[in-house]
Formats: sequence, structure tokens, C-alpha cells
Amino acid sequence: MEIYLDNSATTRVCREAAAACCQAMETVFGNPSSLHKKGFAAEQLADQSKIQLAAALSCAPGELLFTSGATEANNLALIGAAEALKRRGKTILTTAVEHPSVLEAAQELERRGFRVKILPPAGPEGYTPEQFAQAVDEDTILVSAMMVNNETGLILPVKQIAQAVKAKNPQTLVHADGVQAFLKLPIRLKSSGLDLFSISGHKAAAPKGIGALWIRKGVRILPRSFGGGQQAGLRSGTEPVQLYAAFGAAAEAQLPYLQENLQHYRALKAGLLEQLAAIPEVTVHSGENCAPHIVSLAVRGIRSEILLHYLEQFEIYVSSGSACSKGKPSGVLEALGVDRRTADETVRVSFCADTTKEMLEELVFRVKEGISSLAKQR
Amino acid sequence: MEIYLDNSATTRVCREAAAACCQAMETVFGNPSSLHKKGFAAEQLADQSKIQLAAALSCAPGELLFTSGATEANNLALIGAAEALKRRGKTILTTAVEHPSVLEAAQELERRGFRVKILPPAGPEGYTPEQFAQAVDEDTILVSAMMVNNETGLILPVKQIAQAVKAKNPQTLVHADGVQAFLKLPIRLKSSGLDLFSISGHKAAAPKGIGALWIRKGVRILPRSFGGGQQAGLRSGTEPVQLYAAFGAAAEAQLPYLQENLQHYRALKAGLLEQLAAIPEVTVHSGENCAPHIVSLAVRGIRSEILLHYLEQFEIYVSSGSACSKGKPSGVLEALGVDRRTADETVRVSFCADTTKEMLEELVFRVKEGISSLAKQR
Repeated sequence: MEIYLDNSATTRVCREAAAACCQAMETVFGNPSSLHKKGFAAEQLADQSKIQLAAALSCAPGELLFTSGATEANNLALIGAAEALKRRGKTILTTAVEHPSVLEAAQELERRGFRVKILPPAGPEGYTPEQFAQAVDEDTILVSAMMVNNETGLILPVKQIAQAVKAKNPQTLVHADGVQAFLKLPIRLKSSGLDLFSISGHKAAAPKGIGALWIRKGVRILPRSFGGGQQAGLRSGTEPVQLYAAFGAAAEAQLPYLQENLQHYRALKAGLLEQLAAIPEVTVHSGENCAPHIVSLAVRGIRSEILLHYLEQFEIYVSSGSACSKGKPSGVLEALGVDRRTADETVRVSFCADTTKEMLEELVFRVKEGISSLAKQR
Repeated sequence: MEIYLDNSATTRVCREAAAACCQAMETVFGNPSSLHKKGFAAEQLADQSKIQLAAALSCAPGELLFTSGATEANNLALIGAAEALKRRGKTILTTAVEHPSVLEAAQELERRGFRVKILPPAGPEGYTPEQFAQAVDEDTILVSAMMVNNETGLILPVKQIAQAVKAKNPQTLVHADGVQAFLKLPIRLKSSGLDLFSISGHKAAAPKGIGALWIRKGVRILPRSFGGGQQAGLRSGTEPVQLYAAFGAAAEAQLPYLQENLQHYRALKAGLLEQLAAIPEVTVHSGENCAPHIVSLAVRGIRSEILLHYLEQFEIYVSSGSACSKGKPSGVLEALGVDRRTADETVRVSFCADTTKEMLEELVFRVKEGISSLAKQR
């Protein structure tokens, strides 16, 4: 039996999303920009998808902009906002644990003459709103802080961060990368104090190639995609309505089970941590301050890639660090106080709704077995 | 019976592409960046898709970069190339008949301090290589000329244009927007003299949300998408392998029929033009110098939107101008010498392999009927 525990890298497409995608490809193939009925039907499907997603985010459907994924959404949030606000200030504030699509976009802004401040965590417990309040000044036009870190599950208190930032400088925009939080933790954008929020389809049982950026009504950013003027001129390009439909269907299918799944993840994590505690070689990086669907752990003496390939023999799939860096060492664990050697011995286990206690027991069994058999080989 | 004659706006997804997409969603759901077998399987599928597309383009599979569509590909070609070459020169040369995703990208480059020269056609016959040779100078870093215009089907001799440009300045890069040519006309990139070439999935029976940019080996452009470093760092973002698979499958399915379809389009166009010639109110903009799958025509006295909605009553779908401008007047017809009033009375008919002589006869019948019934209403 396949035990897929790499859901923070990408998820299986759920039945509802796959069906919506396939059906739209077959029956709603028009171009939403076309003026005839075929175009209108496609536009209606796009509108319906926005309603489904908005329900999962507690925002207005009209505030959602579709992108090709979260990388584009994060890039657009940072670069689009900074370019729109460059007459007001030049400083962007972000954290040391962001996804590369935020950190590299920030680097691009540095090349364009912006100043980027990268906040280290206050300690192994993570970030506090006060840190942000302290770092924000008159020149700060944008703050970007992720809601759930993709490597350890660390939760950043983005609502409180937004409050603290706005108390210091009400003009500063606040963006949160919500990729690992969407459909995992409750999200209420309307009352969040945030201005921009990125989500991804394929981390939440929708297909790859679709994401969205929530832009609070009244917030103005500049486009990065130029052409036919689709999506109110903010993101030109023919709209892939079959992906919109799949994204919306995935949200609609999962939203009613959010609390139930959250309890499920908590129980899974508690059980896993209990078993791991009994293995002296194991250190866990995902504590109480972390979301319950991600467990990052290091096995002393076994490099993460070795363990990953050992486990895949038994059809158990985990990740070494994050899939996005493809083996490159990431700075996230180091920023969180994990030493380099332990970081190199870290694997990430991430759940979906179908993950079972038995799967995690099998994982632990194989990890233990690996510890003794791989140790012998050395 | 539905008569869909708006294939240059978007096409129905072919059976092969839809099947490849749905199957990949179900079975190859891994993240190609993941180090385990699930990631490897996804990577293999991506590689296979590139081989299929490369066969249709006569290029090396490794020269293909996937994008979210042709808008992204055109934007990346222009902005990525210009930014990479800005120390060598500041002038970009393009044509007055380009798609908005080229013209608007050129405008963005103007905002960034580049000089953009827009060539008008030499006459109603279109563009000559000599025009480009004359306009190119030492400061010209990039020329962008489309292969087939999306509104009238006008063919630009891009191979000869590339030759003329390189003869004048061997350092100048030449990009062609190949969206309306891909899988319609034979394309041999290797021997084309071009450096960059954009294609779109959904104009060629693949789903929306996927496109590609061919970048000749050795040509360096700068990325516009920043993050996990996918696609050799040139286009970060998780790769939507199900869309790659669909795009590759669409190319593989159609390539063997390219010559046959070309003959089919020629016969359809000849038959349609013959029938239209008998209607005094009709002017055709798509002559011998145009690709055979697009016929642009004006009906004197009937605004294009009126005719479009009249025809859709009978389930006949055509386009007023291009879908990309959603009713906005486009400058293409004007540049080609069509007066404003006639431009406002222009509809575009565009074929696919399934278009039949009978469908076009029905179109002509309804156009004639429309001329008399709509004229009575005035």
C-alpha cells in the first residue's frame, strides 16, 4: 500500500476537483473573453469558482485574482505592491522563514532599488507581533509574513502581526503567504487586517497550475502580466476556467470538513510525536506552535536523502526539506535554531485527510528499522 | 447542431489531450521537484511532453520552457530578453499587428526606459523583410514579429525577417509569436534563424493555462518568476505536469495531419471566399497572404457585435475582432488599411480540423439572411 506523506509538496487531486476539471474541458471550452454564449458560459463558471473559494476564505469573490500558482501570486503580491507604492517608501519587511517565491521576489525588489529587511525569529518559538511593530517605520510600504511555514508547520500570528504593523504605520500593506494554511486552518480574510493573501491549488487537492491572490477591496497593486486585459487588467492571459472550476470544487468539497480534519491532524500528530519520543535518535522540529498537518523531524546519523530513499522502497513518501528547493539546503531550519548537521538529517512528513494512524505507525516502524539497518551499513 | 467557428479565440480540447490531462491528474500527481519516485514519475512525464512538442516545432526538447500560456511566454520573451541585453542596447522593434501581449509588454519596456519602434505594414499586403533590415540599427537588441496574425491570418515572413535582421545586426535577437501558426503551418525552428518562439496550448486543442517559449540554445534571457528555481531557474513555480502532458498529447495527435489539415483549411477558405464574393455587402480582409484557417470579413451596414449575436441564435459562433480585446477596437485592421467603420463591421471566422464545408454554407446562409432581416430592422 502506498503511504503518501508528502502533502505539503503536492496533493493528490480530489475526486470533485478532477471531475470539475474534466467536465469543464469537455463542455465549457469557450474563452471567457468571447462575447458569445460559449464565452459567457466560461465566464459564469469562473464566477462560480470565485464564490466557492471566497466561502473558504471569508472574503468577497470579487477580491480574488487567479494566477498560475502561488509562486506567481507571491511574486505579484510583493513586486506588484512595491511598484505601486514606491513613491511612498522603499522598505519591504519579511521573515527568514518565507518560501523562496517570497524571498526571491524580495531579492528582485532589492535589484530594483528597494530595501529589504529580513526578520529572524524571536527564538525557536517563532515570531511575535512586537518584532514587526519594532521593525516597521515610515518607509515600510509592505510586510510579508507567511501563515504556516512549509518546512516545519510553524504558525506565524499573521492577524496580530497585521494589527501591530498597522498600529505603527497604517499605510503599510500586509501580505500573507497562505499556501500551507488554506483549507487546513480556519481563515477569515475579511476580519484579518491583511491586505493580500496567496493560495495554491495543488497544495489543497486541486490540480497544479492554479493559484489565487486575494487583494482586499481598495488595495491597488500593479500588474506584472501584460496583454488582453483579462481579470480587470491585473493579470492578462486567457483564463483557464477548467482549473478555476477544479480549484473551486476542491474548496467546496473540503470546507465542510475543515474542523473535523483539523481534529484528525491533531490526533495524528499527537500519536506520531508520542511514538517518535520513544526513539532516542529522533528530534522533532514541529512543536505546539506548529500547524498539526506537518511534522518535521531529524534522525541522528542518517542524512535526509538516505532516509527518504530508504522509505520509498516501502512506498512511503516523505520530503527532505521542501520539494521547492530540490535538495538544496534551505535557510528555514537554520533560522529556527536547528544546527546544520541536524538540518541535513531532517525529513518532513505532511498529512492529508486520508492519512491514517496505521500509515504513521508503518512510517515509525520503517524509521526504526532504517535506523538499525542503515547504521549497520555505515 | 453547434457550429463553432471561433477556433482562433480558443479550441475544444481534443480527446487525446483531455485524456492525458485527466490520466495524469489521477496517476502522476507527484511534484517533479520531489526527490522520490512520485516526483521522478512527474519529471519523466514533463520530459516526454517536451519531446512531443519539440517534434512539432523541429527544435531540441531542452530548448522548451513551459509557461501558463502565450501571454506569459510573450511577456517573458520581450521583457526577459530586453532586460538581459540592456547593456548592449535599448531599442526593441516590433509590428503594429502584434497581439496585445507583445504590444503591452513593449509598453512596459518603454516605462522601464527602453525605446520601442513599431513598424507599420509596408501596405495591405503586410510586412517585408526589407522593412525590418532598414529599421534595425546597432542599438536594436530585440525584434518581435508574429508568424500569423490572430485577426486576419496575415502571414509575416518571420524566417526571412530573421535573416534580414541578422544580416544588419547579428547580435539582435528575433522573437516570433507563433500562437496562431502552431500546428496550423509547418514550423522548423532549428533552421528558422529565430531565437525565441511562443506557443499556446488552448489555441491548438490543448487545455487553457499552458503555453511554452522556445529559447534557442545559447540565448540568455532573464527570469520574471522567482522562487523554487524550477525549469533551470528561468520560471519558478510547481510544474503543472498534467497540462504539459495534455499539451504534448495534443501536438502528437495533430502533427501527422498537419499537411492534410492545411489542404482542408485551404479548400474551406476557397469555398467560403467564393460564396462571400457573391454577397455585395461583404468585404474580405484575409487574402492570399493570409493563413488558410482564418477568414476576417466585414458586412457593410451591420456592426460586428450585432452579427455575432444574430449568428449565435443559430449556434454559430464567430468572433468580433479578437477575443482578447473583448469588444475593444483593435489597431490591427486599421494598421492594415481598413477604415474604422469597416473595422467595426468585421467578424472573424476561424476553422479547426472538424470544420466542414456544410458548416460554412450554413454560416453564409445565415449571414445573407442576417443582411436582409437586420437591414429591415434598421
